[in-house]
Amino acid sequence: MTFEVTILGSNSALPSHGRHPTSQVVNHNENLYLLDCGEGTQIQLSTYKIKRSKINHIFISHLHGDHYYGLIGLLTSYHLLKRTEPVNLYGPKGLKEILEVNFRYSDTRLVYTLNIHEINCSDSELILESDQLAISTIPMKHRIPCCGFLFRQKPAGRKIIAEKIAFYEIPLSAIPDLRTGKDISLGDRKIPNEELTTDPPIPKSYAYCSDTLYNETFLNIIHGVDMMYHETTFMDDSKGRAEITYHSTTLQAGMIAKKAAVKKLLIGHFSSKYDDLSLLLQETKSIFENTELAEEGKIFKI
Amino acid sequence: MTFEVTILGSNSALPSHGRHPTSQVVNHNENLYLLDCGEGTQIQLSTYKIKRSKINHIFISHLHGDHYYGLIGLLTSYHLLKRTEPVNLYGPKGLKEILEVNFRYSDTRLVYTLNIHEINCSDSELILESDQLAISTIPMKHRIPCCGFLFRQKPAGRKIIAEKIAFYEIPLSAIPDLRTGKDISLGDRKIPNEELTTDPPIPKSYAYCSDTLYNETFLNIIHGVDMMYHETTFMDDSKGRAEITYHSTTLQAGMIAKKAAVKKLLIGHFSSKYDDLSLLLQETKSIFENTELAEEGKIFKI
Repeated sequence: MTFEVTILGSNSALPSHGRHPTSQVVNHNENLYLLDCGEGTQIQLSTYKIKRSKINHIFISHLHGDHYYGLIGLLTSYHLLKRTEPVNLYGPKGLKEILEVNFRYSDTRLVYTLNIHEINCSDSELILESDQLAISTIPMKHRIPCCGFLFRQKPAGRKIIAEKIAFYEIPLSAIPDLRTGKDISLGDRKIPNEELTTDPPIPKSYAYCSDTLYNETFLNIIHGVDMMYHETTFMDDSKGRAEITYHSTTLQAGMIAKKAAVKKLLIGHFSSKYDDLSLLLQETKSIFENTELAEEGKIFKI
Repeated sequence: MTFEVTILGSNSALPSHGRHPTSQVVNHNENLYLLDCGEGTQIQLSTYKIKRSKINHIFISHLHGDHYYGLIGLLTSYHLLKRTEPVNLYGPKGLKEILEVNFRYSDTRLVYTLNIHEINCSDSELILESDQLAISTIPMKHRIPCCGFLFRQKPAGRKIIAEKIAFYEIPLSAIPDLRTGKDISLGDRKIPNEELTTDPPIPKSYAYCSDTLYNETFLNIIHGVDMMYHETTFMDDSKGRAEITYHSTTLQAGMIAKKAAVKKLLIGHFSSKYDDLSLLLQETKSIFENTELAEEGKIFKI
């Protein structure tokens, strides 16, 4: 099953050095989830050959422009392309009003349904759930309401061994019970579950930690995730600047990764003052070795 | 004196084929004027090495997204870069409200002065004037209020021949009179103006005709301009579609250029249905020979 994230942009605030503002696409079993949508996101989707039409859920972490100025363009393009599938949009209070005022003056009445779900950003809450996946918010500490998003795969049923099913001529109606781990009776014979199934894959998880001050309050929420994206706007020598602007440094992101015992760390939201990103990577690795730069175009398997 | 236009984007509605939505920069004597500001304009400015800080005047033709979705990003970048010069923004009613709602939720209080000038789009009016240039609106016929912009150089004074001034030892105080064409008296000697000056350059003009139905009502406003940009969203075989969507075709733009006796025509705002633009150029040229494609990155001297 596919579970991966593609980086569309990871620069902070100002587009610079050819880098775009924040946006990522999570692909879970060919369902696409867009995380933030900075200016130019729809063009980046096209650059990296990701079908925008396949995105049904969009999550906006907060209302600083580098995280949502591309949203109105994407939503308008869906309209012009006569999209029929609904779009589910999750974001803080204000997003609805911002979109409505744009659509009012352009006299746009969307041809598709746009469901806007307001999220509160002060507590972690489950905002979307399917058979396979649960998505919750992760409260950040930022200058305005802001939250990250946690993707957790649900435990899958046990994997059926097809040849054994055929061999014992087990009826299809027994499959659901087998998946839950039950043994099966055929006449007077009992076949133990472990002969017919194997362990399911271990559920994976991805935490997207958008703009935030160094913040230990969400450690319990993200504990042990397989991959965490955490912003590193600045290097350690600018930690004063990070504090004033409610951002994090390389060392702070590394510390969060270590304390939360995550398996892998992606860093991004780089200040436009940094042209060469290798120093940010090196500094983060000094605290947390399994780190990679969230550079645009890169795909990370979770 | 520099008087030229650089195309930053000229695709209609949807960004496609690697083409960006509408934006152009007029450079008049190193004063930069931005015409429309589709999504990604600030990135395009950087791509074509045009200093965004040198733009002091921005004109938005109408409130369809492909003409202004990049504006909020550009204005925010000026803020983050601690701009000190004011920005003068000209656009239809609604633009102020759209910007304000974004800035309110991001808690942004601009560090520079943003003067928003509301334009009415129903009559041609002079909206900006300097010693060298006059800028007026050109009413378009579109689904929502929309106008183009006409740049007219003002007549310059006669050109002084420096060597003659030195030879006759003419005082500096006489220069303004010489520029207006007056003769000069030195003691009892009268020196005719034409011995000391040459004709000034002929004032040039540029008409930017944004989204519009075929519309002869502005022919008198743009008559004889040196260069006109006119939208050609569609080719002639889609003229029905052009009418429904309040756009123009190649042949219609050519006809406007011909009837207004403009010297040169630029065409743009190409529908995303066209990958190869040479056919649009060819069709327009069948009516008006001196036509060029307004392709991004191209610079046209006026």
